[in-house]
Amino acid sequence: MLLAPSEVEAGWIRTLNPSVRTEGGARRPRKSAGVVRRAEKEVNRLHALGTHLLLELRDCNPKTLGSLEFVQETLKNAALEAKATIVEVAFHEFSPFGISGMVVIAESHLAIHTWPEYGYAAVDVFTCGDLIDPRVAAKFLIEKFQCKNPSIIEMKRGILGHEKLPHKPMVQGELVSA
Amino acid sequence: MLLAPSEVEAGWIRTLNPSVRTEGGARRPRKSAGVVRRAEKEVNRLHALGTHLLLELRDCNPKTLGSLEFVQETLKNAALEAKATIVEVAFHEFSPFGISGMVVIAESHLAIHTWPEYGYAAVDVFTCGDLIDPRVAAKFLIEKFQCKNPSIIEMKRGILGHEKLPHKPMVQGELVSA
Repeated sequence: MLLAPSEVEAGWIRTLNPSVRTEGGARRPRKSAGVVRRAEKEVNRLHALGTHLLLELRDCNPKTLGSLEFVQETLKNAALEAKATIVEVAFHEFSPFGISGMVVIAESHLAIHTWPEYGYAAVDVFTCGDLIDPRVAAKFLIEKFQCKNPSIIEMKRGILGHEKLPHKPMVQGELVSA
Repeated sequence: MLLAPSEVEAGWIRTLNPSVRTEGGARRPRKSAGVVRRAEKEVNRLHALGTHLLLELRDCNPKTLGSLEFVQETLKNAALEAKATIVEVAFHEFSPFGISGMVVIAESHLAIHTWPEYGYAAVDVFTCGDLIDPRVAAKFLIEKFQCKNPSIIEMKRGILGHEKLPHKPMVQGELVSA
């Protein structure tokens, strides 16, 4: 799944493309794979506060992107699928078409902007802590919008030092231990 | 300002670091500058639907990050500074500290998550169309949170083809021409 990692100023970026086949593993030269492994090791050592997935959902079913109710329920359900705790929801429908919305979760947020006329949606899934997996939400959204050409960039947010920082996910209003 | 551009699967990324001095312009070899110019030209030709700035705000004044009222007003004012039209606002304060919030604008969204205990905030400024400049909002936020160590990644979202796509910014509920 790991295609083109590169370290930049504000964190760590890698590209996950669900449409790319990874069977065989022969597409990446040995040397490059070694560089990737070392870089991944370094990233794991750095400990970021959050993981931010940026989804480019191309070739979706336009009908799914044009319904305010469907988009809102789908984003909320994606959060719940990932075991996130929803704390705020805000959506807006534009004229003649297009929906923008956000679901604030105890573990950060999900955001969506749809262009039904292009079958495209820009989606962000930003989570903190180790308790929930943003990829579960991403996979759910790709399926529900019937997206035939998705791509994902994963970024680490809040790389503040080399020590492991505690996070503070909330469950039903209570602080739970990291 | 352009430091380390690299094209990846889902769009175009470049790193803007306000703390890096660019006077003299002697830090980048000629060849690299040429590559950057060609890449920028190609990006301009591609026409993305949106521009997404990912701000890593380190070494902020913790007091500014811990006040729900201040964070909310600052994010709203950042949107207004950039001439955006606010359509939805949702904020949440966590116990013992930390604020998450989102401002949905007609031109996409602003989002913030603060960790006052680390003097850190993760901020997103996502705008569509050519009428507003997300960097104005980014500069405003860096100033208001008294951030001494900011960095910014700029990503293009919705690169769907080589043709220029119309955007549909809304002003006071009306569709304006692109």
